[in-house]
This record gives sequence, C-alpha cells and structure tokens, in this order.
Amino acid sequence: MSGTRGELFDPIFGASGAAAVLDDASWVDALLTVEAALARAQAAVGVIPQGSATRIDTVITVLREAGDPRLTPAALGAAAMAGGNPVIPLVGVLRSALAALHPDVPPAHVHRGATSQDILDTALVLLLRRAGTLLVTDLTRAERACADLARTHRDTPMVARTLGQQALPTTFGAVAASWLSGLRRTRAEVSRQVSALPVQFGGAAGTLAALAPHGFDVADALADELGLPRALVPWHTDRTPLGLLAGAVGAAAGEIGKIAGDVVWLAATEIGEVTEAASGGSSAMPHKQNPVAAITARAGARRVPALVASVLASMEQEHQRAAGPWHAEWEPLTDLLRTAAGAAARLADSLIDLRVHPDAMARNLQVTHGALLAERVAVALAEHTPDARARVTAVCAAGLDLADAEAITEFLPEATVRELLDPAGYLGHAGGIVDRVLSAPDPDDL
Amino acid sequence: MSGTRGELFDPIFGASGAAAVLDDASWVDALLTVEAALARAQAAVGVIPQGSATRIDTVITVLREAGDPRLTPAALGAAAMAGGNPVIPLVGVLRSALAALHPDVPPAHVHRGATSQDILDTALVLLLRRAGTLLVTDLTRAERACADLARTHRDTPMVARTLGQQALPTTFGAVAASWLSGLRRTRAEVSRQVSALPVQFGGAAGTLAALAPHGFDVADALADELGLPRALVPWHTDRTPLGLLAGAVGAAAGEIGKIAGDVVWLAATEIGEVTEAASGGSSAMPHKQNPVAAITARAGARRVPALVASVLASMEQEHQRAAGPWHAEWEPLTDLLRTAAGAAARLADSLIDLRVHPDAMARNLQVTHGALLAERVAVALAEHTPDARARVTAVCAAGLDLADAEAITEFLPEATVRELLDPAGYLGHAGGIVDRVLSAPDPDDL
Amino acid sequence: MSGTRGELFDPIFGASGAAAVLDDASWVDALLTVEAALARAQAAVGVIPQGSATRIDTVITVLREAGDPRLTPAALGAAAMAGGNPVIPLVGVLRSALAALHPDVPPAHVHRGATSQDILDTALVLLLRRAGTLLVTDLTRAERACADLARTHRDTPMVARTLGQQALPTTFGAVAASWLSGLRRTRAEVSRQVSALPVQFGGAAGTLAALAPHGFDVADALADELGLPRALVPWHTDRTPLGLLAGAVGAAAGEIGKIAGDVVWLAATEIGEVTEAASGGSSAMPHKQNPVAAITARAGARRVPALVASVLASMEQEHQRAAGPWHAEWEPLTDLLRTAAGAAARLADSLIDLRVHPDAMARNLQVTHGALLAERVAVALAEHTPDARARVTAVCAAGLDLADAEAITEFLPEATVRELLDPAGYLGHAGGIVDRVLSAPDPDDL
Amino acid sequence: MSGTRGELFDPIFGASGAAAVLDDASWVDALLTVEAALARAQAAVGVIPQGSATRIDTVITVLREAGDPRLTPAALGAAAMAGGNPVIPLVGVLRSALAALHPDVPPAHVHRGATSQDILDTALVLLLRRAGTLLVTDLTRAERACADLARTHRDTPMVARTLGQQALPTTFGAVAASWLSGLRRTRAEVSRQVSALPVQFGGAAGTLAALAPHGFDVADALADELGLPRALVPWHTDRTPLGLLAGAVGAAAGEIGKIAGDVVWLAATEIGEVTEAASGGSSAMPHKQNPVAAITARAGARRVPALVASVLASMEQEHQRAAGPWHAEWEPLTDLLRTAAGAAARLADSLIDLRVHPDAMARNLQVTHGALLAERVAVALAEHTPDARARVTAVCAAGLDLADAEAITEFLPEATVRELLDPAGYLGHAGGIVDRVLSAPDPDDL
Repeated sequence: MSGTRGELFDPIFGASGAAAVLDDASWVDALLTVEAALARAQAAVGVIPQGSATRIDTVITVLREAGDPRLTPAALGAAAMAGGNPVIPLVGVLRSALAALHPDVPPAHVHRGATSQDILDTALVLLLRRAGTLLVTDLTRAERACADLARTHRDTPMVARTLGQQALPTTFGAVAASWLSGLRRTRAEVSRQVSALPVQFGGAAGTLAALAPHGFDVADALADELGLPRALVPWHTDRTPLGLLAGAVGAAAGEIGKIAGDVVWLAATEIGEVTEAASGGSSAMPHKQNPVAAITARAGARRVPALVASVLASMEQEHQRAAGPWHAEWEPLTDLLRTAAGAAARLADSLIDLRVHPDAMARNLQVTHGALLAERVAVALAEHTPDARARVTAVCAAGLDLADAEAITEFLPEATVRELLDPAGYLGHAGGIVDRVLSAPDPDDL
Repeated sequence: MSGTRGELFDPIFGASGAAAVLDDASWVDALLTVEAALARAQAAVGVIPQGSATRIDTVITVLREAGDPRLTPAALGAAAMAGGNPVIPLVGVLRSALAALHPDVPPAHVHRGATSQDILDTALVLLLRRAGTLLVTDLTRAERACADLARTHRDTPMVARTLGQQALPTTFGAVAASWLSGLRRTRAEVSRQVSALPVQFGGAAGTLAALAPHGFDVADALADELGLPRALVPWHTDRTPLGLLAGAVGAAAGEIGKIAGDVVWLAATEIGEVTEAASGGSSAMPHKQNPVAAITARAGARRVPALVASVLASMEQEHQRAAGPWHAEWEPLTDLLRTAAGAAARLADSLIDLRVHPDAMARNLQVTHGALLAERVAVALAEHTPDARARVTAVCAAGLDLADAEAITEFLPEATVRELLDPAGYLGHAGGIVDRVLSAPDPDDL
Repeated sequence: MSGTRGELFDPIFGASGAAAVLDDASWVDALLTVEAALARAQAAVGVIPQGSATRIDTVITVLREAGDPRLTPAALGAAAMAGGNPVIPLVGVLRSALAALHPDVPPAHVHRGATSQDILDTALVLLLRRAGTLLVTDLTRAERACADLARTHRDTPMVARTLGQQALPTTFGAVAASWLSGLRRTRAEVSRQVSALPVQFGGAAGTLAALAPHGFDVADALADELGLPRALVPWHTDRTPLGLLAGAVGAAAGEIGKIAGDVVWLAATEIGEVTEAASGGSSAMPHKQNPVAAITARAGARRVPALVASVLASMEQEHQRAAGPWHAEWEPLTDLLRTAAGAAARLADSLIDLRVHPDAMARNLQVTHGALLAERVAVALAEHTPDARARVTAVCAAGLDLADAEAITEFLPEATVRELLDPAGYLGHAGGIVDRVLSAPDPDDL
Repeated sequence: MSGTRGELFDPIFGASGAAAVLDDASWVDALLTVEAALARAQAAVGVIPQGSATRIDTVITVLREAGDPRLTPAALGAAAMAGGNPVIPLVGVLRSALAALHPDVPPAHVHRGATSQDILDTALVLLLRRAGTLLVTDLTRAERACADLARTHRDTPMVARTLGQQALPTTFGAVAASWLSGLRRTRAEVSRQVSALPVQFGGAAGTLAALAPHGFDVADALADELGLPRALVPWHTDRTPLGLLAGAVGAAAGEIGKIAGDVVWLAATEIGEVTEAASGGSSAMPHKQNPVAAITARAGARRVPALVASVLASMEQEHQRAAGPWHAEWEPLTDLLRTAAGAAARLADSLIDLRVHPDAMARNLQVTHGALLAERVAVALAEHTPDARARVTAVCAAGLDLADAEAITEFLPEATVRELLDPAGYLGHAGGIVDRVLSAPDPDDL
C-alpha cells in the first residue's frame, strides 16, 4: 500500500500490538464510534429524537460493514487535506449517507453542535486508552518477571558495577528488585494518567453554544456512552491531560531503557551473566548470542524522550484552537504510546525467560583478586590506622593480594582479611531490599 | 566572577528566586546539610557515638560560618574534577577539619558507609524541593489571578479564535477559567511529585553493606532528619522519581506557555484586548507597549520540553551507578526547575495586573460584520433548507451582510437574522464554564 | 492493512510524496537493490563470477515481479523480529530462491562478506537521498514563490511587528526576501549533506575481512553501482554523516516554521494581510478562511526539533555495532525527512498562490494613528531637545496625535511631523533588501 | 554571589574554558564592544562625527576600567527585567555617562539607528565565535590523540564487538581511525558554521530606516570593525545561521559521546583494554580506576541533543522580532557551546594519555575459545557443504572447539581450522583503514 509504514519495523520493536490499536483503521473506527456515541448521547439528553440517533447508528454500522470506499484511510486522508483534519470529510460522508438512506432525518443531526476537534480529541483519547492499557499490561508483565528474578536470586551474589567499574558485591535479586521498583512506580503513574483522560466536547468555540442549555448534559452523556471520564469543562487548548500522560510514559520508558541496557551489558560476551532464551543470530557471525529483545527494547526507549518533548512542545496552543500545534500532536502522541508499549513488550519478552548464570556471576566476583572488597578492608583497617585508605589503595594499585600485603597484615591478621574479602559475607541489605520491594503494596492499591 | 552566569539573564526570565535556591552556594550548603544530618542520623541509630555527630555538626557549622576557602564552589569545583563529583573533595575537607579540631573523633565517622551519590542525590532532592515549592507558589499565584479574571469577566463577550481566525463569541471569563483549569491540574501534579522525592541512601553498591544491619535504619533516620520521605529501597539507578517530576513540570510549563502566548497575541496592537500593567518599552520605539512579562514567560516555557527530554534521556543509567548519564542529569534538572519556576513567576506577574479591555473585545466582535455568527444562522437555516451551509458560506464569501441577503431572508426574517447575529446572545455555557471551574475542588484536597 | 499508518495523516501534512519513497515497500525495494548491486560490484571486482551476479540479479528481479509473499513488508517484519533487522530474513529468502532457481550458484555469493548493517545503512542512504531530493525540490519551490512575492511587493508598505506590537513600516517585499534568504541558506546545506551521504560497506566487524584484499574495491564498486559517494572507510558506528544531515534539515524546518507562522498570523482575521488561495473551511463555521497549508506546514515544522534530537541521541553507538541506538535511528530519520519534506511542500503550496492584500496592509499602518513612526519623530526632535524620547512617549501614551501635540510642535512644525509620519517615506533599505537577496548568487553555485 | 552557577560543575565537565568566554561578564563586555564598534563604524561612514565615536569609545573604556556599578551583570540584569533585554539599560548608562563626561556629544550618537537585537545578536555572535574556536581547538586536540593511537596501534589486534557481543577481530588502530574520521568530519562543519556567523544590524524594523541611505554601509563597517562576515541582509527573524551552527555542534557532540562511551566500556573492569592516565578514585572504593574524563565527556555529550532541539525550537520567530522565541535562544545557545566544548575538552584529556593494553586485548580475543572466528570457518566450509553455517552454529552452541569438531574436520583439516581461527590472520583491511584515514586531506583544506 503506497506510503504506508509499520509492517516492516513494528514487529522488531515489539510494537505490532500497540500499532494495531493506533493505526489508520483504528483512527477511522474511533472517529465513527465517537460520532455514533454523540448521536446516542444527544438523543438521551433530548437534543435530537431517538429515531435520529438510531438511524445515525445504523448508517455508521452499514458504512463500516460495507467498507465504504469513502471511509478508507486513504480516501479520508486525501479529502482531509483541504480542511486540515479528517473529521470534516467524514461528517460529510455520514450526512450524505444518512440523506440517502434516511431522507427523513435531518443530516444536521449528525455531528450536531460539535467541532472537528471534539471528535478527533475524543477519538484520540479512545486510542490512547487502548494503547495505554497495552503498555500497562506489558509493564506489569515485566514487573512479574522482575519479581520472579528477585525472588529466585534473592541471595545470588554478583558484582555491583559503578561508573563501569567493579565496585562491591550485591545480589542479582537486589538488582532485579530495583528494576521492579522503578517499573511499578511509573506503571502506576501511566495507569493513573491514562484513566484520567477525559472526553472532549466543547463545540466550535468551546462554549457549547449550539447546544445550550444542554451542552454540559450532552458532554457528560457522551462521556458515559464511551465509558470515559467526564470533563469539568472543554479542554480544546488546555492540553495538560495529554502533557501529563506523556510525562508519565516518558518516565516509564526511562526505566525500561535502564533495565534493557543492564540486560545488554550483563549479556556481553566478557560478562556473560545473563542470556536471553531466544537470543538472535547474526547474518555473518554464527556464534553470536545477541540479546535481541533487550536490544530492541533499548532502541525503543531511546526514542521516547524526544517524543515526549514533541508532545510538550505542541502544548503551546494559542487561543481556542491552535493553528498547527494541535495538529502537531497527533502523530507524536500515538508514536509515543506505540514506541513505549513496544519497548515494554520487548523488555517483558527479554526478562520472562532470562537465563541467569550464577556461575558467571561468581567468576566475575573473582576478577579483581579481592580488590572488590577493598573498602571493607579499608574500613576495618581504619580502626587501627588513620592512613587505612591510602594503604589499601597502594596495595590495590600495585596489584598485590590484600591478605598478603604487610601494609595490611601489620594491623589485621591474614585470616581476617580473607574473611573480609569473601563476597557472600558482604551483601549488606541486598536480601532485605528484595523483601521490601516484593512485599510493598502496589501503588495502584493505595 | 570568572565563568559564572545567572545574574544577567535570570531576572529577565523571572528566575532569580529559583536561581537563589539552586545556585552553586545552595549546592554546597545542601551537601554540608546532608553530611551533618547523616552524622546525626547515625548517632540516633547508634552507628557512631553521639559525641561524634555533635562534633561533626560543629565542624560543619564552623567551616560554613568561616566561609572556609576550601568549600567555596570554585575550590570544590576545581577539586572535583579528578573524581567527577564535588562530594569527594568535600568529604576530604570535612575529615581533615575534624582531624584538626577534634583529633579524638575518627575521621571515618564523617560520610560513614555513604557513597558520593547518596549525598549528592539527597542534596539534589533538597534543592528540587525548594525550587519546586517556589514553582508551586508562583503557579498558585497565577491561578489566583486567573480566578479573579474569570470572576470579573464571567460575562465579558470576546471573540473565540480558532486556527488564527475569528470563530464565534466566547467570554474572557471562559478563557481565563480554562487557563486556571490547566494550571491547577498540573500544579497539583508538580506538588505531588515534589513531595514524593525520597531520601537517597544506599552506600557504595546500593546494598548499605558498610552499615548492615543498621543500613535501613540509618537511611530512614536520615530521611527523618531532613524532613524527606523515606525511600523503600535505594534508587541510585532507578531515576523514576526524577523522571516523573520532570514530566509534571513539563506539563505545567506547557500550560504556562499556552497562557503566555495568549496574552502576547491578545496584546498585539491590532487586537488590543489586554495590556500588561508594566508593559516594557523599546530602545528604539517609544510608543510600544510590549507585554514583557508574558513574552519572557513564553520564552522560558519554550525551553522546557528540551530540558524534560534531557532529564528523561539521562534515565538510562547502567548497572549500579552510571558512567555519565548520572552526571548528565545535575544541570538539566536544576535548569528545568529554574526555568519553569521563572516562567511561572513571570506569568503570574503578567496576569495579576492584567488590564482587560472589554471595549476592544466588543470592537473585535464586529470586525467580520456578522460573519462571526454565521454558524448560528446556518443552524437556524438548516431547519428550512438542506443547503443552508452552502448558502451561508456563499453570502459570507461575497462579503455581504447575512441579514440582508436574499439567500437567507428567503427563509428567515431579517430581524431573526439580526438577533441571531448578536454575540451576547450566543455565549452558550461560557458562564457555566467559569462557575464550574471556580467551584471545583482543588485537586490537592482530593 | 492492520497496523499500518500514513494514509490518513500524511496528505494533511503534505507528506504523501516523501512517504511514498520512505515507506515499507521502498525499504524492501532498496534492500533488494543494494543486494543486487553488491553482487554486480563483486563480479566487477572479480570476487564472484559474473554469472553469479547475473543470476542473483535475475532472482531478485523475479522475486520482485512475482511479489513474492516472503518479501512483503509484513512477512519480512515478522521474520525480522528474531534477529532484530530485516536483512537477515531477506538474505535467507534470496539464498533459498537462488538455490531453487540456480542450484549451480553457491548461495553464499549472495550478501558475500557483508553484514546486515552494510545493506540496511546503504538502503537508508538511498531512501534519504530520494526524500532529501523531494525536500530540496519543495524548498526550491517555496523559494521561487518568495522571490515572486518579494519582486511583486518590493515597494508594498506594511507594518513591521516586533514582540507582537506594531513597530515601524517595512515592505512585504523585504519580509518575503528575508524568508527567501533563510530558505536558500538551509536548502543549500540540506542539499550538500544529502549529496555527501556515502555508501556503507564494512563487513561483519568493519574490517572487510571476508573480502580482503578486495574489500575496498568492492566497497567502491558498490558505491559506483548505486551512484553514491564512495566512503573513505566504513562508518558503522561513526554516524556523523547522518547527524550532519539531521542538523541541516532541522535548520531548514526552523525556517519553514518561521514563515508558516508568519502566514498564519498575517492571515488572522484582525490582520487580514494575506489569504491562502485554497483556504480551508470548518465543519462548524462556514465563514472561516483557514490558511490550512500554512497551518499544516507549521505543524510539521513544530515536530522537527524533537526528531533531530532523536537522531542525535542515537549517535552514541558503542563499539562496532550498537545494541539499540543503531536500531533507534531508523524510524526517526525517515520520520524527520518525511515530516520536513511535507512541511516544505505545504509551505510551497501556501506561498505559491498567496493572495496579498496591500489595502489591508495600508489600513493596518494607520491603526496607531501615527504612533508607528514615533521613533522618526523622536529622532528629529532629538536634534532640538535632550528629552525628545520622553516627550514622544508621553504623547503616545496619552493617545494624542503627534502632529498636534504642543510638546512636539514646540520644536517641529506640524507639516514636518506629518511628513515624518508618512510610512512610505520611512521604508529605509527595504527595497535594497529585496534587491540584494534577489541578486545574490545561489549558495549551491559557490 | 547569589544565584550564580558554573563554578561548581563546569570544571567537572571540562567547561571552565568555554564558560569563561560565555559568562555574564563576557556578555556585558561583548555588548560594550559592539556599541563601541558601532560608533566607530558610523563615524567611518560619516553618519556621526569622528569626534563622537572617539568620545563614545573613551566613555566605554572609562566605564569598563572603572568597573562601573551600573554595568555589572547583576545591575544590568535587574534593570533589564522591565524591557526584557539588557541592551536597553546598557544604552541608558552609556548615554548618561556620555552626557556627563562629554555634554557636547549628543547622547543619541550612542546606539544610533540600532535596535537592541542588533547589539545582542552581534554580541552573541562574538561569544559563539570564541567558544566555537575553543570547541574546534579541543576537537582538533582529540583528533591528534586519535591519530597517534591509530598510528601506534595500527596492527594491535583487538575484539570487534557488535550488539554487545564479541564479533570478530579488528585492530585498535582501526577503531581509533574511525573515531578520528567522525571527529574530523564534524569539526570541519563546526568550523565552517562558526566562521559563517554574520554581523547583525537592521535597526528597529529590520529596514535600517533610521540610517538610510547609509544603512548597509554602517552594517558592513560594523562587521569590518569586529572582524565578522558581513550580512547580506539583516537576519532578525531568520535564525538559520544559528540553527545550522547548532546542528553541526550536535553532530560533533554525537561523535564525542560515541568515543567517550567506547572508552568507558573498554575501561570496564572485565574488559580492561584501556585505562585513563588520570583515573579518578572513589570516596568509598579505593581500588577503582574510574575513567573520569571519558565519563564526564559522555555526560556532556548526552545533554547536547536536547540543547540542539531547544535552539531549533526557538527558530519559529514570528514577524520582525519574536515575542519569546528570540529570548528563548540566548541561554540554550551558550549552554550548547559550553557543554559541547567541555565534552570535547574532556574527551581530548581522556585520549591524549590513554593507556592501551594490548595484552588485555589479546586475552579478550581468546575468551570465546575460537568462536570469534566462526565466520571464517563457516566461509571456508561453505566451499565444501551447503549447510556450513548450520554446522558451525551447532558446534559453537555446544561450546566445542571448532578445530576438534568432526562436523567441521569432516571437510577441513584441523590445522587449517586452527589457522583460520588465528585473529592476527583475519584483520582484513584494518591496517588500510588506518592508512586511509591518516593520509586523508583535512576537510578544512578542501
């Protein structure tokens, strides 16, 4: 299909699911859904006769089922160019179909008192809720994987790495618990902001004038018909519900990127502490075990900050309908949800069957020949001499074994030093971190 | 002072207040505050003797009051280069000062079991809370101004403009109420995310190993000492609290930019519907009345999306302490809060004394000679003829008076058309929008 | 087609043309083109027999013409998920088709010594060149429109507006000449960076090892086959050619957004100085004349800075092939070109038939009753009194006529003041600005 | 100094040098420099008497040397708030000082025919040129370090890593040559765009009306006085010179981030292939060797894409002077140059004394026990059997030695396999890549 995109790359980025609820067809479907719901809402309030609503509903069903060629994305898109949005031609089609099928119903009963933005914004909200739900679902799936990993590896020692360097021991359970904590915090926020997206209905100038005194009633009935939160007032150029959603999605994607990056680095050949169950091959190097799910999750997450900025930059919507910034927000918002949901899906894929290698973790704990626990020796030594740190640093710099070095054994017996250098004996609250995170209430339940 | 910035441009952007709590001196002060609180917390938990804490506190007070040259921003900055953060030299100064003043107290009692990031992150949280409070205060100030404007001008008709064109009548009250609604929604979120920023305390590897089994107790006591929320677990590389804050600030700034832009355009010479009380002059054009507060608020808001993206882009913090992305977040976070708080302050300045010109609003309502209410005529005409819209469009396109045009008066009497064209008669729910927004509960109270 | 996008919104944003050369089908086609060219290049160099190249070429042609179901975007996308890029399954299809049709040719002669990134990057370059050419074409179209406007309105006085306020007279010609100047400067840069995009060919590790000693020869022959610049060396993780292109496109879009915004504001009902020939209607307000082309150009341009940031943020590509950032660049780069080219196309649409209203410009010059030329009076008065500016400011603030005010006429005769207040007499170098820009050599020719 | 920043963090990010030429004091100095040059230019053209220019020059020198308290950044900043830019009060100070010292010279000879933006933009250009020169210098320094590394390690084998996995051998020389190539390409562009920044001089409305017919002559003379390129026409709201500069700087920073990231990962404890000469310590872990220069270079580079987006987003400058977007660009532009120059400086620091460990590189080449050269074996085997790749993959997956596995030795003798597995024998064109890059002409010389 000329000019279309999505089929080639969405699967790679885990975005096919979200794409399917955010695609051109979903847009058209949602626009029709909103127009049908509006007719029903107006009949419920008494603004148009029930018969009009029923017939409008029927006409929309008929057009949908017939796959009317005037309502394909391509046809609507072409027709939308003149006015700058697809609702104008869509209403035209609905009215002429109604006139053809039910000449007794005034065509003006379609889209009555509404403006294009009412329909488009509400349709956008429907799309964002569906995609937002997918995002929340995949974040939750990733959380469960983290919880399993944290539980299973509560006491599996591994190297903690800071600034790219081995620092001290931790456990893989503590690492996974930290991942879980970040995912949970942001997933709850995404969920909250998605649920808060309200119906949009304000009429041509945001005053609902064409429907007064029934304007608010119609708006509320429309929300009810669609299962959306009612809006306090129209929000045509108050884009804060969308901006807040974008911010929460951005934070969630930030955590996705963090975790995916960790998987990528832990799976590096020289580290080898985790492997993806379904590692990807290479066209040229048959031995490679690429953590493809984490790689593509990371790729998706990397794109999100700019998409958030794009949404925020289009919030500056002048007067009662913006000449450009409103239009500028349609694609970035759906791109944002699609990209973030895809990244969440790929992250969940990566984590759910992640193969953890405690032996590699143990091996890496020995790479520095004890220097890893130099801090512990330094602290113990500091009870005996004020230049403890300098002594430890010097021994490490010389590549010597701390338990052999006279600079240390002058104050601490070798056996004590060896005990101090045992990673398993210096895990601190790693286990407690796992326990705290696993037993914390879900923020959604608070 | 060589290399410093802030004094020349911060006042222009309303940022002096926030800058004063986010500047180099505030950073150093907060770092010292955290080290002192840590000593007290450890004494409270029994990790170090009370006497050590008292003496550490004293030493910090002495150094502060003496303006010790090793603790100036310039000195710490220069010394920080080697290790990549200012906590390393700061701890060095504290320990050597302690050794000099209280040789009986082990220097290791300073910064015990802590890592640089514990101190720096917690100091950052202190700074963000202070700046966040200023931001919330100025948003609230702007909200109050909007509420006053909405109340006063509940029934002042003005033109609603969509896509840059006059659309229909609304009221200035409804416009101001919409501004208020967006500010309130985002201010509540900013407030919520600022309040949620927790203490950071995890030790070198995030396991609190050097303080086990008292690690969590110290972390909690440190939070209590500083009046911060306790952290469930350390969050060294889980930057979601910061990402969520950035997102909320971004949405608030989006609304600030929207409102400031509206003021700028409403103050345009040809519109003239508002004037800032303290309009700025020009170096070359003495007659100009520039809405400088709104202009500079808009300028600040325009910068925010990129700053949010910068914070989100640095969330990808690998392993247990990131080699770069952690450092990358310090300046963008404070720039974000400073810029947003400045924009909020300038917006509040603009709105508080905004001079509204109902006469200009009335004049602008007449600019189109009635075409403004063409929709209303079209709707009324649609009861009589299916080509109502086409007729109205044709008359408007010809620049004719709708009440005179035979295409219209064929169905509607001239008097009816004139009535339909009266803006005051077509304000819809504009008044109700004001009432709803003014009587809505504050989200902070929910 | 499930999950696809582009048909509904691309036409609105003028992006259909660019979308058609950047869509899924174009990607697949370009990947096949590169594989075919690689075989030909290797035969030319003698790495594989000419017969192999001919047969590979034939197989690719056959598969293309047959619309082989394994090579649809959907099929390749699904198969690409495992390895993280579509080249892996594509090569698989080519090899098995070759084995089926020409069992005598070793399948390994397809994609010999190449890595997926060689094929994908080179295909991306082909796509970017096509879309870049469209962007340059539409920028040039917009430039010609600006040149016509500048020439026609070289001496048409209009108001210059600064900080949203009327400032002084200028001409519409000078305004259009400034537009032209910015477009020309950035179009030349876009053109330059597009032309510089080189072939990519480095093999699995960037050393061309599988083809040594013929690696460079194959790379150069591949470039020649495709009409691309040769690469000095492989650039798998040196993304500077792409980053520089993104920067130039970003600057061009910045100028597009500036001009589109100007058109939107000049077309505002209260200004009315320009109208788009094909102004868009409204679903609810029949009288409106929305400058839809400028509105949608502005919308597209508004999205570009974030897309540039996305491309730049993915330049941090570690080692010899990045685990995520490489993948993160595919969609933002094509989104960037599509969005910018669409904005250029809509801007050109807007400008080519722009209706300019010198009468409205003349009317707006009189809105301030002379205050517009207050500077001129102030300068003349300054020859007579040091408080000239204060006097002028006071008269303007009082809303008085400068030619009547005694504070002025005390020093300058009324007739002199009236002459000073004539806009046509104070156009400065506006005409010269037009002449300079129109006669400047094209940067492409320098 | 209350509210100032820069001293604490700039040194960490290598930004002190650039900060010193972009700080508040530099701004004030540049504004004064431009006003003085303007007076001289106007005298040269004959617009004001030579005596006026001389006296204005003297007054500026006197005020500068006296450190006049009205011209401190703090005083100007405070006074700038009312009008929204610091030029307004600065001109006020100059005129009143001139009136006090030289009552015979009309105060209007200061800033004659200029607008604030002329002065501020030209001063900005002066600042950007200085900082741009520093950026270019440090990029060149980093290039020289890369050239040295490439030359020295032309034939030092190391592992090429793709998607985080060991892929094949390359040489450190080839890696360093690729770094050099990217730096050189973008440095040349930065240099080109910095040099192209022109003088700004257009007067209040961009028509130079107050100086006609000498406007262009004054503009050109001002450029000559300051050693800046002349402007074809004023560019008050054509921000393309700045946008193009930002794009080039963004691409350069992208390459800096790439290289810094490589150094960080190559310095990771488990890889250990490079060490920074001046590695940073840790406050808690005495054994760590943090590559602090690369870490902070990476941190700086990470911030750049958002700063570029900020500059591009403020290009949408409406009419003849933008109400906000102009102001929005001041800090992001200087932040951009400061951050990028700092990152370049830290990168150069890192590379200049980088300690390379060929032994570690050799050790890492053996980590996979030969699987690294599996491709080579697969290619050789493919001459004998069509399922070569499957066989090799199976042996690698089983963790067996390729030279021992019957699946391989069935076709290839063990000795041949061992030879195929020798990294030094499979470096392809790595050496040629070094030679090509080192012998390529500098783009600046083309």
